[in-house]
Amino acid sequence: MPAHSYKHIEVTGSSTVGIDDAISTAVAKAGKTLHGLHWFEVVDTRGYIEGSKVKHWQVTVKIGFRLED
Amino acid sequence: MPAHSYKHIEVTGSSTVGIDDAISTAVAKAGKTLHGLHWFEVVDTRGYIEGSKVKHWQVTVKIGFRLED
Amino acid sequence: MPAHSYKHIEVTGSSTVGIDDAISTAVAKAGKTLHGLHWFEVVDTRGYIEGSKVKHWQVTVKIGFRLED
Amino acid sequence: MPAHSYKHIEVTGSSTVGIDDAISTAVAKAGKTLHGLHWFEVVDTRGYIEGSKVKHWQVTVKIGFRLED
Amino acid sequence: MPAHSYKHIEVTGSSTVGIDDAISTAVAKAGKTLHGLHWFEVVDTRGYIEGSKVKHWQVTVKIGFRLED
Amino acid sequence: MPAHSYKHIEVTGSSTVGIDDAISTAVAKAGKTLHGLHWFEVVDTRGYIEGSKVKHWQVTVKIGFRLED
Amino acid sequence: MPAHSYKHIEVTGSSTVGIDDAISTAVAKAGKTLHGLHWFEVVDTRGYIEGSKVKHWQVTVKIGFRLED
Amino acid sequence: MPAHSYKHIEVTGSSTVGIDDAISTAVAKAGKTLHGLHWFEVVDTRGYIEGSKVKHWQVTVKIGFRLED
Amino acid sequence: MPAHSYKHIEVTGSSTVGIDDAISTAVAKAGKTLHGLHWFEVVDTRGYIEGSKVKHWQVTVKIGFRLED
Amino acid sequence: MPAHSYKHIEVTGSSTVGIDDAISTAVAKAGKTLHGLHWFEVVDTRGYIEGSKVKHWQVTVKIGFRLED
Amino acid sequence: MPAHSYKHIEVTGSSTVGIDDAISTAVAKAGKTLHGLHWFEVVDTRGYIEGSKVKHWQVTVKIGFRLED
Amino acid sequence: MPAHSYKHIEVTGSSTVGIDDAISTAVAKAGKTLHGLHWFEVVDTRGYIEGSKVKHWQVTVKIGFRLED
Repeated sequence: MPAHSYKHIEVTGSSTVGIDDAISTAVAKAGKTLHGLHWFEVVDTRGYIEGSKVKHWQVTVKIGFRLED
Repeated sequence: MPAHSYKHIEVTGSSTVGIDDAISTAVAKAGKTLHGLHWFEVVDTRGYIEGSKVKHWQVTVKIGFRLED
Repeated sequence: MPAHSYKHIEVTGSSTVGIDDAISTAVAKAGKTLHGLHWFEVVDTRGYIEGSKVKHWQVTVKIGFRLED
Repeated sequence: MPAHSYKHIEVTGSSTVGIDDAISTAVAKAGKTLHGLHWFEVVDTRGYIEGSKVKHWQVTVKIGFRLED
Repeated sequence: MPAHSYKHIEVTGSSTVGIDDAISTAVAKAGKTLHGLHWFEVVDTRGYIEGSKVKHWQVTVKIGFRLED
Repeated sequence: MPAHSYKHIEVTGSSTVGIDDAISTAVAKAGKTLHGLHWFEVVDTRGYIEGSKVKHWQVTVKIGFRLED
Repeated sequence: MPAHSYKHIEVTGSSTVGIDDAISTAVAKAGKTLHGLHWFEVVDTRGYIEGSKVKHWQVTVKIGFRLED
Repeated sequence: MPAHSYKHIEVTGSSTVGIDDAISTAVAKAGKTLHGLHWFEVVDTRGYIEGSKVKHWQVTVKIGFRLED
Repeated sequence: MPAHSYKHIEVTGSSTVGIDDAISTAVAKAGKTLHGLHWFEVVDTRGYIEGSKVKHWQVTVKIGFRLED
Repeated sequence: MPAHSYKHIEVTGSSTVGIDDAISTAVAKAGKTLHGLHWFEVVDTRGYIEGSKVKHWQVTVKIGFRLED
Repeated sequence: MPAHSYKHIEVTGSSTVGIDDAISTAVAKAGKTLHGLHWFEVVDTRGYIEGSKVKHWQVTVKIGFRLED
Repeated sequence: MPAHSYKHIEVTGSSTVGIDDAISTAVAKAGKTLHGLHWFEVVDTRGYIEGSKVKHWQVTVKIGFRLED
């Protein structure tokens, strides 16, 4: 991270595909209303089960975005 | 949680009654400006003391609310 | 705890009343199939929200029960 | 907390009523020998079980009290 | 999670394919002897190495299943 | 903290001077768009290195601000 | 751990001798009803005191055992 | 623990013999000035090295003692 | 630490200058009533804000002091 | 792990593909200068974002390798 | 951090001046034998006390340095 | 620790005897290639089981050694 200021938000993304896709979903969702998204960090990896199979994955990420100078 | 995306916020609610009421206060406060509140998780339970009695309770909760699809 | 051996299980109890009641529910549920329940410890306090009010409380407890000598 | 110095102690209070009452008991106990109790923070929530019911609740709190200037 | 009671177990699944597959293996294994599996949460992600390559992945998940009412 | 409700945000501030200055920067940044900032808590202290010297410091703080009654 | 699936349980063993012996007690207890115990990990080391001496040691271990293929 | 109130202190004991002995030393030291010591919990296990051998062991324990009713 | 026994206390010091000064204040406060202070460890770094500026810093330290042999 | 001694190192691997690939990169990098790599454990999963998409994934693993007897 | 691989080491630096200076010392020490130091993260802040004053500060940092491609 | 700089490494030692011996093994192993070992701290205590008995103990320690001035 260069010498700027950042604000962090926490978002949960869902996917029927897997962990990587759930993270990409969370990042894309956050990008709809915020500019300057810079990094993410995985906080929690969960999912829901149906008939002994993973039905959907839910990954919570902390996302940092740059504040205007 | 169904297969949607969620954003999380952290709020502290106060009460002179007890822990459960402080949580309800935090949830009600958050509901004044946000729609689609879905779940909460207790982060921290504190309080202030006066004359060796609990004067008010302060509970911090993480609240998740659904993002529009 | 006296000098015995114990096994621990983790159970989530629900209640529309509050945190104390959700714990009592979890303990009662565990007591239906296990004997010798001895202590509990709160692991996690969560809940679900509807219309900016707490709809039900969900508390996860670790419960220890004594193993036969 | 205003700009003073504080010392912290850790106390466990018991109650047959519930969590809030166990905390009040811990605070009252600490207030018998210390002045200037200012705040508490819940460290651990446990309890003992008898006949699949919670027999008594035990909550450990960290309590801060003001040091003389 | 709806207003039911849940028990949690902890299972480690292995896979030569990757993290997602090791989780699915753990869930499938647990489903052989338990009904009503509802959710999982990743506790630990490890693996074994041979010749500087990941030989197999081992993911430990906590799985919650619904207790009969 | 008096008996109000608070919301928390997480902000990273940067400084070429040191840790205290990076915290002040984070607080000042947050104050540009939010009123009623009340307290902060350090979450993480990091920094970037160039030529075996600390080039800039980056401190992440959680900041609480009062919600309107 | 080879490429199998494992389930984990948590057991507390007691001993008047010391920590190592309390762990061996916990493992022996678990082995009375479960086969294929593979590894343990210390979760918590506690004990009870009488007359300013350790009366008995209580160590909680997480134990992994292999699930049938 | 029966339904009393307890205060906790944290003490580090040293030993040239091993971990169990360092804990017994800590408990004995605390017992010189406090009555009613009831339980301990290991917080931290460290030691000092000289000539690639452990010279002495240092274990920090939290000790609970009963408060007068 | 040489092979002695130590007791730990937790103290919060305040300062309008910065983090280092708040720690020195906590240590000086503890030294008014205790002898043989040996080391400290930072537990928590917080502060209060007024008008988007840090008004005073509050650092909580754990302090170890030597028990008489 | 068989009865040998192991040393641990911590390495961050990057990938534009996903989490599994970033771990494989970290392991391969470590294998260039060290022999006897035996296991890994994920410490931290992060990534960088560009245009609301994950640009590259960065996973930090702790890797254990066997020390010569 | 750009898309490279990094190794982490942990170093404690000392200073009679303060926390910032102890970190700079740790970084400078690490830079004597390693090239490509990129970032640090504070792990632990401690110090030694003499006559109720901080005699020297000791800060432990995790330092990341770039591995050759 | 006197006012020097230290580097930390993490090593796992094994023993068929017990925890103390596994730590001594880890320290002795580290001393074969490094000088100036100063202290250790237990990170993790595990072991392997065969026939419901502890077959060997594995303790992971962080070891600090002094860097040349």
